[in-house]
Amino acid sequence: MQGAIHNSTSRLVTSLTQLVRPSRTARTAGLRPFLSAKMMAGDTEGDQPRRTKVLTMDTMNPHIKLMEYAVRGPIVARANELEKQLEQGASKPFNDIVKCNIGDAHAMGQRPLTFLRQVVALCTYPKLLEDPSFPEDAKNRARRILHSCKGGSIGSYSESPGLDVIREDAADYIQRRDGGIPSNPNDIILSAGASEGIRCVLKLLVSGKGKERSGVMIPIPQYPLYSATLAEIDAIQINYYLDEANAWGLDVAELQRSIDKARTHCTPRCIVVINPGNPTGQVISRSNIEDVIKFAHREGLVIVADEVYQDNVYAKGSHFHSFKKVLTELGDEYSNQELMSFHSTSKGYMGECGLRGGYCEIINLDTEVKTQLFKLISAKLCPTVSGQAVMDVVVNPPKEGEPSYETFSEEKAHVLSTLAEKAKIVAEAFNSVEGISCNPVMGAMYSFPRIDLPQNAVNKAKEVGKAPDVFYAEHLLEEAGICVVPGSGFGQRPGTYHFRMTILPSVEKFKDVMERFKKFHSSFMARYKDED
Amino acid sequence: MQGAIHNSTSRLVTSLTQLVRPSRTARTAGLRPFLSAKMMAGDTEGDQPRRTKVLTMDTMNPHIKLMEYAVRGPIVARANELEKQLEQGASKPFNDIVKCNIGDAHAMGQRPLTFLRQVVALCTYPKLLEDPSFPEDAKNRARRILHSCKGGSIGSYSESPGLDVIREDAADYIQRRDGGIPSNPNDIILSAGASEGIRCVLKLLVSGKGKERSGVMIPIPQYPLYSATLAEIDAIQINYYLDEANAWGLDVAELQRSIDKARTHCTPRCIVVINPGNPTGQVISRSNIEDVIKFAHREGLVIVADEVYQDNVYAKGSHFHSFKKVLTELGDEYSNQELMSFHSTSKGYMGECGLRGGYCEIINLDTEVKTQLFKLISAKLCPTVSGQAVMDVVVNPPKEGEPSYETFSEEKAHVLSTLAEKAKIVAEAFNSVEGISCNPVMGAMYSFPRIDLPQNAVNKAKEVGKAPDVFYAEHLLEEAGICVVPGSGFGQRPGTYHFRMTILPSVEKFKDVMERFKKFHSSFMARYKDED
Repeated sequence: MQGAIHNSTSRLVTSLTQLVRPSRTARTAGLRPFLSAKMMAGDTEGDQPRRTKVLTMDTMNPHIKLMEYAVRGPIVARANELEKQLEQGASKPFNDIVKCNIGDAHAMGQRPLTFLRQVVALCTYPKLLEDPSFPEDAKNRARRILHSCKGGSIGSYSESPGLDVIREDAADYIQRRDGGIPSNPNDIILSAGASEGIRCVLKLLVSGKGKERSGVMIPIPQYPLYSATLAEIDAIQINYYLDEANAWGLDVAELQRSIDKARTHCTPRCIVVINPGNPTGQVISRSNIEDVIKFAHREGLVIVADEVYQDNVYAKGSHFHSFKKVLTELGDEYSNQELMSFHSTSKGYMGECGLRGGYCEIINLDTEVKTQLFKLISAKLCPTVSGQAVMDVVVNPPKEGEPSYETFSEEKAHVLSTLAEKAKIVAEAFNSVEGISCNPVMGAMYSFPRIDLPQNAVNKAKEVGKAPDVFYAEHLLEEAGICVVPGSGFGQRPGTYHFRMTILPSVEKFKDVMERFKKFHSSFMARYKDED
Repeated sequence: MQGAIHNSTSRLVTSLTQLVRPSRTARTAGLRPFLSAKMMAGDTEGDQPRRTKVLTMDTMNPHIKLMEYAVRGPIVARANELEKQLEQGASKPFNDIVKCNIGDAHAMGQRPLTFLRQVVALCTYPKLLEDPSFPEDAKNRARRILHSCKGGSIGSYSESPGLDVIREDAADYIQRRDGGIPSNPNDIILSAGASEGIRCVLKLLVSGKGKERSGVMIPIPQYPLYSATLAEIDAIQINYYLDEANAWGLDVAELQRSIDKARTHCTPRCIVVINPGNPTGQVISRSNIEDVIKFAHREGLVIVADEVYQDNVYAKGSHFHSFKKVLTELGDEYSNQELMSFHSTSKGYMGECGLRGGYCEIINLDTEVKTQLFKLISAKLCPTVSGQAVMDVVVNPPKEGEPSYETFSEEKAHVLSTLAEKAKIVAEAFNSVEGISCNPVMGAMYSFPRIDLPQNAVNKAKEVGKAPDVFYAEHLLEEAGICVVPGSGFGQRPGTYHFRMTILPSVEKFKDVMERFKKFHSSFMARYKDED
């Protein structure tokens, strides 16, 4: 994307240069020399005063300027540029760019699930319901969805929280997942990917000025949607550090330190937990989740549980425990604890990022506030109905005995077992490299290895005005064609340096990537070796 | 939607009642009795203090509370309730609810365009590319889109402003539409419906405090996305009134009055123009657009041109003139005038609301600000790729000589001629009713008739704490089963009363609707007749 920006910017500069003639009034950013309406009244067309742009860096929304979203940041832009140069025959020390920056499974070659796409195609073009090559269970799913759509078309608006039948299916899914603990369809809001829902919920809880301003606790390292959204909506970001030495564990003492410090300058209202972790790949234990819930309850925090990787657990002995289930099992004491849990079609085994499906389960929210949340989403009309249909397949997959059950199960198992294999290979490979250490990838789709950067490299980076991990990642891209996201895009303890690399390239491709990586890394380390 | 909320709320209340036992600490909204972390430290689980909800009406985002979106407001909620009651066999003075509240063509029975759905189905399930029953031109469109998708799948993320080929097609469309005036694909941002793009752009230009706070001029009556968004982002809404006596014309003297008044308390930065108008149905003349551009240029305002109804022009002698074309033809003097123009797949002849497609063309935006806008959308990852594919068909329809050309043209012409017919019938029908006057529906999808309410009705409404137009619309729903949106949801001159009714029911249905309407209206007027 940033590549597109860069190209777009340079092309735009050209086009602007062609279009914009020098202005008669001096171009003083932020100081627009308006004449009063009365002075204008007698002007003829030819005498219109020139003026500078209305929107400049000085006059635009200052919060947007503060946003950063490294997953699609400048290094990715540069990777896109290099890719185009390679296509045009440029000579580089590598033959391709491997994009390990984003959790985009289909882009890395994963095939869509047959059943899922059949259902969405049937909903899109109902004439296919007459096509005998489509299985009956896919047709039944599509018929049910279409029946729920006004006018029988996915081209009509759904209710703003989504089609009723899909909300029902989501609630059933959650109930099965959580061993029978009830879920209410009226607590489900479908959204275009989890991101949209997360932004809505965070927006809902921002208020106050000065010390009263809402603060939101987020893990460091975190997925930068959170820091970007908090910057955009002008909420206070409260960092709590995950414990790298303890497999990126979540320690309540650290939560306490973090909130106590935050209370001196803002009003903490929410804690975000990403489980399985992004970018860290940790899977939180049941007792750890209990600790977090007790902490949030004690401290008066809404819990935002980002559980979009709930299907992506690989480590032996690790299991996904939903916050909803643990909260409910903690008993009535906690029955007023507000919790929002998010799921997505973009991750898991389906990897349907582009179709934009997701849901949020809203638990124990004040009734009036919930009405306000529904009002907020009503102005957005509705999330994409085809994205809702994708979510429906995820929460209501083929059942045993249905015609598509076997194929679906095989395709799902294949994706998940390959991911598990790669999760293992990646961490082991990194740990075999001197100067790199990597926690096990217990879940999600990323490794987050730590680089022991020589002081010389740190100094050199500072000399050229770069964060040391950005400096390293830039060299990794320029010298080995591997695109990763520097750790500073997620946050890391000061003085430590990391990068996030997805586990999505194919097993074969990954061997190539690791060879290229090792070669680059030893060359980089030799170049900046510290004098003893 | 609001129906869903209401149901959801009542069911939620039940479930909360079941779940939440009385709390040990008193529930004092907004005053959460926290104990300090230290006091807590020694507590065992059973001794956890109870607390009230974190998020209450007192602690939630105050701006969201101010939002209103009448198109999905309480009257629609009530319509949904009545619909369910009818389904359950309740006896009412009507047999069905006619939903004339929202521009949702498929919900009212319009069929999707064959070619459009074929292309999206092919993109969704590429195995259909082998199916000989799909026409070659649809396959070619799908292949081109899939080739532009990473990994050849619409399940991969696109670039945040959309797939390159679709941005190119949109630019070509604009260039054709505007008689050859160039459009740059880098100026196109695809979005999930126009609403998403409009929200982003408005967000971009909010800044300042007190008198420096950004103001946005919007027409009254307006489409409530604008008032809702301005409330949400805490920008100042500046009303300018359209001239009902002059076919909802846009008068520059009124713009001047409005901005002069606004400058006393805020900093106007933007003017929104909806053309063709929603809810007013007016189509602005070329010279009127020139006036608006000159006004915006003189006063230092970004122009937001909501042109989603650009295909919906029915009145003889009326034509759609894009702001882009008029701006460009005004010459170099205006080449620094910032303009954002929006289009959507939800309206026009396609009516694909649920698939969420749209684009924004960004003209003359400062290069650095444009980069910031692209950064803002990057955290949203990308608009739904299937919605992008829908937009592609709209901007790149079958060409003469292609296999689908005739069917596509026939389907399109049928929809548009039927809408034109209904636009005429509706206005005429309303004008034949005593106490109702309605401007011609020149374009868009709505009539916005004025009701001359008897003073007795106004008094009665006030007595029961309702706006008089809401009171009228509620009775229209309860007595005739017709769901419209009261004029106060869009804004209207004080002391005037209107409602918005779509022209989407079928011609036959509309005859029924008008009979029901007339019967209701004369009964209502008789009931509240003013004493002479």
